[in-house]
Amino acid sequence: MFAHVENQKQDFLARVMDYVRHPSISAHNIGIAEVAALLVTMLQEIGLEAETVPTAGHPMVLGRWQNKPGAPTVLLYGHYDVQPPDPLELWVSPPFEPTIRDGRIYARGIGDNKGQHFAQLMAIESHLKVHGELPCNVIVLLEGEEEIGSPRIAEFVAGHREKLKADYVVTADGPMHPSGRPTMTYGVRGMCSFELRAKHARRDVHSGNLGGIVPNPIWTLVHLLGTMKNAAGEITIDGLHDAIVPLSALDVAAVERLPLDLDAAKASLGLTRLDAPAERGYYERLMFHPTLTINGFHGGYGGPGSKTVLPCEAVVKCDIRLVEAMTPDDVLAKVEAHVKKHSPEVEFIPRGGMLPSRVPLDTPYGAIIRDAIELAQGVPPLEFPCTGGSLPDYVFTKILGVPAFVVPYANADEANHAPNENMTIDCFYNGIRTGAALLDRVGASKS
Amino acid sequence: MFAHVENQKQDFLARVMDYVRHPSISAHNIGIAEVAALLVTMLQEIGLEAETVPTAGHPMVLGRWQNKPGAPTVLLYGHYDVQPPDPLELWVSPPFEPTIRDGRIYARGIGDNKGQHFAQLMAIESHLKVHGELPCNVIVLLEGEEEIGSPRIAEFVAGHREKLKADYVVTADGPMHPSGRPTMTYGVRGMCSFELRAKHARRDVHSGNLGGIVPNPIWTLVHLLGTMKNAAGEITIDGLHDAIVPLSALDVAAVERLPLDLDAAKASLGLTRLDAPAERGYYERLMFHPTLTINGFHGGYGGPGSKTVLPCEAVVKCDIRLVEAMTPDDVLAKVEAHVKKHSPEVEFIPRGGMLPSRVPLDTPYGAIIRDAIELAQGVPPLEFPCTGGSLPDYVFTKILGVPAFVVPYANADEANHAPNENMTIDCFYNGIRTGAALLDRVGASKS
Repeated sequence: MFAHVENQKQDFLARVMDYVRHPSISAHNIGIAEVAALLVTMLQEIGLEAETVPTAGHPMVLGRWQNKPGAPTVLLYGHYDVQPPDPLELWVSPPFEPTIRDGRIYARGIGDNKGQHFAQLMAIESHLKVHGELPCNVIVLLEGEEEIGSPRIAEFVAGHREKLKADYVVTADGPMHPSGRPTMTYGVRGMCSFELRAKHARRDVHSGNLGGIVPNPIWTLVHLLGTMKNAAGEITIDGLHDAIVPLSALDVAAVERLPLDLDAAKASLGLTRLDAPAERGYYERLMFHPTLTINGFHGGYGGPGSKTVLPCEAVVKCDIRLVEAMTPDDVLAKVEAHVKKHSPEVEFIPRGGMLPSRVPLDTPYGAIIRDAIELAQGVPPLEFPCTGGSLPDYVFTKILGVPAFVVPYANADEANHAPNENMTIDCFYNGIRTGAALLDRVGASKS
Repeated sequence: MFAHVENQKQDFLARVMDYVRHPSISAHNIGIAEVAALLVTMLQEIGLEAETVPTAGHPMVLGRWQNKPGAPTVLLYGHYDVQPPDPLELWVSPPFEPTIRDGRIYARGIGDNKGQHFAQLMAIESHLKVHGELPCNVIVLLEGEEEIGSPRIAEFVAGHREKLKADYVVTADGPMHPSGRPTMTYGVRGMCSFELRAKHARRDVHSGNLGGIVPNPIWTLVHLLGTMKNAAGEITIDGLHDAIVPLSALDVAAVERLPLDLDAAKASLGLTRLDAPAERGYYERLMFHPTLTINGFHGGYGGPGSKTVLPCEAVVKCDIRLVEAMTPDDVLAKVEAHVKKHSPEVEFIPRGGMLPSRVPLDTPYGAIIRDAIELAQGVPPLEFPCTGGSLPDYVFTKILGVPAFVVPYANADEANHAPNENMTIDCFYNGIRTGAALLDRVGASKS
């Protein structure tokens, strides 16, 4: 298998560059239908049954090879949509003209996520070419709306349980550890978003002529926010922590095994300190604590110099990252109750969310993935109980009820969501090898 | 005198419309030199000695008639610069094409302040035409930078004490009371401005990938602001209230005489409540308490929908209105010390300020102005111990050491600093009559 991958390297490289040449920007509905159709053809040429399944938004692409009754089934999830490429002027080479420089492929989507699921597809192709069959059953699910928050995947998964029936799910997405060590993760934080809007007077007024008379919506929001999280960094919304599952001994031990160079981490971000509370461990912050992030605060004058205005409205946008077993519905209800109690004048606008996902660290499926990575890359992966960001893995763990893992193939500096997104050619090849080894290990396991 | 004014009405109206046709936008340095030169010619034609006096910014225009040795001297202050007219699309008629509709002159600067000081000049002209002389000595000082915060008037006044030697100062500026009752004021609040800037990481980061690790500058500013003013509306900056002069019995009595329709005031602004603290009287808020207004708060994402960003910087702009005897230097030093103590990471940027000004309510000069207004308008003025806004009257009271009063001639809905600025023709004529009566009453008083 690895010999076949080695022989086909130039072909794989040419084909992934051709794939990422096609824009598929979900936020702007550019190229989505074309790339979905292209994928169906591609999956069929590889040897899978393939179809697009319409949703209320962009279609899902489904591929399957299920010719091995009794063997386990792995569902490989990815997404074929990409982030908008702006700001274009910061790209060294155009985002949809894939270019190789210094051993890296530069193109929008090469890391997030086209290059990664394309590596999975080349792994499937390699097995079929070499052996005429796969070692296990495979379902490929490629979403077209991940970059706009996966608004329809829960409904889609809940409505197609039979089509998606698998033993477990593996997603190749995200970056590997900065050390270059391969990585596998057992969970993701969830999230929910909301807005707070305050408006008092009908119009902006003069800060002298009416200062002291007219309430200031920025002050209203400042004081409300002050009741939601204190300066010590503790979220103080009633009941917000109720559902949180305490760390297990396995969680603690897993965190202790992870490498950490705190000075390097701070230096790379230009930080003189970590966020409050000061005493929390680096990984505990990302894996086991919710956040309350103000994404934006806007009200009043923001131009040069001064303006003696008392503004009439202000808006705050926030997100909360959720850890197991918080839910967006419960958390948003608690935030709303808090706002109603402390500042009933403020409008609360929920913006939806995504459940967290966790697979227990002692799951027997962990060994299959761990072994596959070590087989392909020669070194065992770093195992993360959870990552700070959010992926819709809950649709697998909580709707389908099967374990879901993330095995990133991209380099840590892939610059996803940013100009000059890239993937090293080595990471791409290692992804194909890892995907091939994964199918092999799945096939060798019991269903 | 009043008969002369009555006869010349059409001529005065045509001339003021010609005057406001000339743009003089200090913020953009448009038309300033032209209008300063135009004013010198105008003052000379009226019969005054006139000159422009250069400053480091826009020139001062000075006029004088001092041919009455032993008689008192009144200094009439005004400003010939105007606010930028944007947004142009909201003007019914173009801002520099004066237009009469429904008994009002519409033009940028007609209320603030060209129409008002032009009324003063027509009063002077009327006296000179009717009597060949003035009843008292007069100095006219017209500034070209009032709308950009009068940054050079203090230095100018301090450097030209002899040229500006007067017994007291009267400024015709601002709006009359909404009831239409004429108004006189004995003081203005001062002000100072500052910015607070917080920056933590070198760049914006993902709220999931680094939420909990990277400090959020919006939270930093929210918590700092929370230490500066509490939700009860009390400013909690150490020492900020130290210099404040307590209300006198005269102040209390003066406030009690002022008419107040609180429901109408709230309705006109669309308010359901006044600003905290709830228990303060309406006029006490504007006259005898400092404010801490957030003019603007900007950081992070402000577009449609959500963005899971953890922003790296945020900026807050504030102003503080000062009551007697607070000073911008002292207040800004106290704010800076507060910021250094509570949030030393935050950058404090002072933006200067203006001293408050008060004339004691029992000054003998009050009667001169009160009588002049009643003579011209048939009704005694409402007497305001102070107004909420700021004018550079401190240069007269605190640098020259003479009393300074404001006697507004414009209607309450003059829309100064806004589109469709206007002055009723009646207010303009009443302004000329009031100016003429004022010169008469000054002349009748003892120097």
